[in-house]
Amino acid sequence: MASTAIATETPSPVSFETHPDRYRHWRFRVEGDIARLTMAVDLHGGLRPGYELKLNSYDLGVDIELADAIQRLRFEHPQVRCLVIDGALEKVFCAGANISMLRTSSHAWKVNFCKFTNETRLYLEDLSAHSGVRTLAACNGTTAGGGYELALACDQILLVDDRASAVSLPELSLLAVLPGTGGLTRLVDKRKLRRDLADVFSTLAGGVKAEKALEWGLVDAIAPLSRFGAAREQMARALAESVPDKSARSGVPLPPLRPTESARRVEYRYVTLELNPERHVASLSLRVADQFQPPAGAGAEWWPLRAFRELDDALLRLRVNHPDINLVALRAEGDPALALAYDRALIEQHDEWFVAEVRLFIRRVLKRLETSAKSLFALAGRGSAFAGTLLELALAADRVYVLDDPGVEVRLGVSALNGGAYPMGNGLSRLQTRFLREPQRVGAVLARAGLIPASDAAELGLATFALDAIDWEDELRVAMEERASFSPDALTGMEANLRFAGPETLETKIFGRLSAWQNWIFQRPNAVGPNGALQCYGTPSRPEFDYFRT
Amino acid sequence: MASTAIATETPSPVSFETHPDRYRHWRFRVEGDIARLTMAVDLHGGLRPGYELKLNSYDLGVDIELADAIQRLRFEHPQVRCLVIDGALEKVFCAGANISMLRTSSHAWKVNFCKFTNETRLYLEDLSAHSGVRTLAACNGTTAGGGYELALACDQILLVDDRASAVSLPELSLLAVLPGTGGLTRLVDKRKLRRDLADVFSTLAGGVKAEKALEWGLVDAIAPLSRFGAAREQMARALAESVPDKSARSGVPLPPLRPTESARRVEYRYVTLELNPERHVASLSLRVADQFQPPAGAGAEWWPLRAFRELDDALLRLRVNHPDINLVALRAEGDPALALAYDRALIEQHDEWFVAEVRLFIRRVLKRLETSAKSLFALAGRGSAFAGTLLELALAADRVYVLDDPGVEVRLGVSALNGGAYPMGNGLSRLQTRFLREPQRVGAVLARAGLIPASDAAELGLATFALDAIDWEDELRVAMEERASFSPDALTGMEANLRFAGPETLETKIFGRLSAWQNWIFQRPNAVGPNGALQCYGTPSRPEFDYFRT
Repeated sequence: MASTAIATETPSPVSFETHPDRYRHWRFRVEGDIARLTMAVDLHGGLRPGYELKLNSYDLGVDIELADAIQRLRFEHPQVRCLVIDGALEKVFCAGANISMLRTSSHAWKVNFCKFTNETRLYLEDLSAHSGVRTLAACNGTTAGGGYELALACDQILLVDDRASAVSLPELSLLAVLPGTGGLTRLVDKRKLRRDLADVFSTLAGGVKAEKALEWGLVDAIAPLSRFGAAREQMARALAESVPDKSARSGVPLPPLRPTESARRVEYRYVTLELNPERHVASLSLRVADQFQPPAGAGAEWWPLRAFRELDDALLRLRVNHPDINLVALRAEGDPALALAYDRALIEQHDEWFVAEVRLFIRRVLKRLETSAKSLFALAGRGSAFAGTLLELALAADRVYVLDDPGVEVRLGVSALNGGAYPMGNGLSRLQTRFLREPQRVGAVLARAGLIPASDAAELGLATFALDAIDWEDELRVAMEERASFSPDALTGMEANLRFAGPETLETKIFGRLSAWQNWIFQRPNAVGPNGALQCYGTPSRPEFDYFRT
Repeated sequence: MASTAIATETPSPVSFETHPDRYRHWRFRVEGDIARLTMAVDLHGGLRPGYELKLNSYDLGVDIELADAIQRLRFEHPQVRCLVIDGALEKVFCAGANISMLRTSSHAWKVNFCKFTNETRLYLEDLSAHSGVRTLAACNGTTAGGGYELALACDQILLVDDRASAVSLPELSLLAVLPGTGGLTRLVDKRKLRRDLADVFSTLAGGVKAEKALEWGLVDAIAPLSRFGAAREQMARALAESVPDKSARSGVPLPPLRPTESARRVEYRYVTLELNPERHVASLSLRVADQFQPPAGAGAEWWPLRAFRELDDALLRLRVNHPDINLVALRAEGDPALALAYDRALIEQHDEWFVAEVRLFIRRVLKRLETSAKSLFALAGRGSAFAGTLLELALAADRVYVLDDPGVEVRLGVSALNGGAYPMGNGLSRLQTRFLREPQRVGAVLARAGLIPASDAAELGLATFALDAIDWEDELRVAMEERASFSPDALTGMEANLRFAGPETLETKIFGRLSAWQNWIFQRPNAVGPNGALQCYGTPSRPEFDYFRT
């Protein structure tokens, strides 16, 4: 059995790259326009030692494979119109997040695990909403906790009606934590379950079986075991056929990124991550390709895709492998005119599925940046290329420092893609969010499509600080030292509140409200103390609660 | 100086009733259509021993007086069209929440303090939005932390321009906590400050002085000390005159409630609170008056006002004085037809300011109920009167149990007031929130205006469980025992996520997002550990941070 010691040391680094050939937990196959991901979690395949992944329970490693499969589906199998997620075990679809793993994880690990899992669930919804791949959770057995949260992220849920299998969110009653991977939010905001029934359901450890689950709207269809396979196929076919034919598309394989790594540096082709753990600062730079290349024939090496794949990988490493980094200095380097040339291709060829997918991917990476618990300073100095799509990196940052000096040419750039191609989690463009008070400024910026001298960028409201060459180094050094000296917890809380002004969506509710409460509970003794429910679960001990309400 | 020991024992009970004659911290005067609340915090007037309320810093006691003044302004001084909040000290308007108080408070106390303060700030905004009392913060000196958050809750902010006074949110940099009394949310969502400037401002311990504060939109006007009084009067007059004349109104004094109290029972005229701390359960009952009385001449004894004042007081006691209560069983008792008769008066005489104010007050109390960290079960059994306004109590509850038995007459009731007179924090009516999935049910319920037999109420979707007389006692006992046995923290988190489906507003963002992050930070060692910033502030020690980001 698992040890209950909490891992406090820095664990060995996690790799976020994988490939279906190496999956340990999922069977991934594509037949025509239907893909099938079958959860078959390897009992002994945990990412960390000390726990067994029983009953299709999962850890971060299982979710890394799921995220990889969704990404490959988009690029490598673009003809797919329906994704079916089912399970390989009998009687159990998925038991949710592995409890022993949670019990033995540090607070930061739990938080990062949940964040990645939440992103992956949202990616399923994004896949359906924007890429025309409908999703079906075919729950062939008990679907508990995170297993049901996974199902909730699909368009439709089919549950086996075998008098035993139930859907359930037993987190509260068994573990004294929340169904924090979007569960509570999706119950009332996506499936719009009546709030009192959601309350009952979320406190029923055993959950709700097929007929009642259908009646309450917790699932969309039920079928006895004898007809389960047929029902699954029928639903998958209907979902696939609700989407226009894509059979003319041929896929683009995604090769491994293979960065060069040393202790303080990860060097990709276009992205460089430099770590300075003593100062709690990292530098993250993205370079524009040296020349323009059209998307046709470039495949996964097309600069926008390659560069943002590298950025995404670097962000995940920063989050999980480098908790000692508090502040990230973001740079875009190269020729901003070339960055805008790529934007033109992203605009003009948007009716090509591949180009559309690249844009959707960039949009997800930008969101990943904004939900990363790191302070972000964009530095537009000498040789900077924050133009168009790359300007979004600056707009995603907490601050933008621009070198504005008559002796140095620094140019930012605007393209039509800044007008809404990459909405934030709140549904607005970054310019709209930035200029909530003066919405006319959005139009003023977009009207300046093309390259913009630093001084004009400052005038347009794109710079937090415009500094001359004399002040640039010193002011930046002081500002970065100060930022990195603040309590990282307080910064996380502040940024979570300042980054997403304006409307709220399912997505911002999940990251802002549900996750914040879960993180709170993940520190409460009733959950994680020596006698807390999470610690006692699966042991002979019963939890002892402090019954004072807060 | 303050002790740094954290109070863990149950402190002596807090009384939420006060009167201007007994204020220790505010001077309250009304001249014509302008009211003035001058903050003059009594250094030695802290609600708890162990700290001095220096520099107009505040604790819960200061805010209880502020809340009382706002309430009396509405009822006792209905001719007022503008409220000016200023300070009695030189050079300092308000230094924010008292740090020594926070340092020596338990987690639960901090959370409850912030919640009440947040409600009071929202009540200022409600006063302006719905009662035509415009508000002006006349900041005659430095306006720091919670002091600026108080100003942010006013319609306009005037800051003295004396080359020294600044507005600031120094919480993050000095204390490693958030400006959690709405500060961060109001910066970007109310004043719509550009997010990067909000980031800079929220990390500047010294804040921003007059001219820049005006330029950034952190304040609405500035004036040198020599012209400060004149500017304040001029702004107050302009605000007052932006509202229609109210001089014909005469006030309704609010007498003390004077409940009968014993260890396990608080008995008001219409409300009874019974405590069962061993079972972590309380019973909270509200009775309908024995006969109908019109509002004219009844004054503060008019049943709807009196009953909801009592309910409000009971809720505050439950929160702060009874943390050992996990579940509240809500009952409405009496003749539901009489409850509907009062609703008719609330509807037909809504153009009377007094009746309108009573409705606004009921709306605030219902919101207080929903932001209380207690599980709420509404019990509609024998003699129940959940009708119209009182039906909102049931709709605010997490579950509604209805006795549905041919041998017992149980009736619920619907009035037009269920159609939107009491919107929730999310801006929707409780029926709209309940029936997000089937919005046509809202109309179906409203079409049944009048009394409704229990079986019909269940059919309409108003009951979570409809039980017959045989099951009633047993099922309720089991359900209540189970609920009260769950981890109170997990319940708080679950309810915060399930109660407010649908759209988000400034208000739900403050309670759902900002408060959740603040509560998380209020447990983090970087803030509250022995070497945390909150513990070290004002002492010779410097905080020591764990620089791992979560």
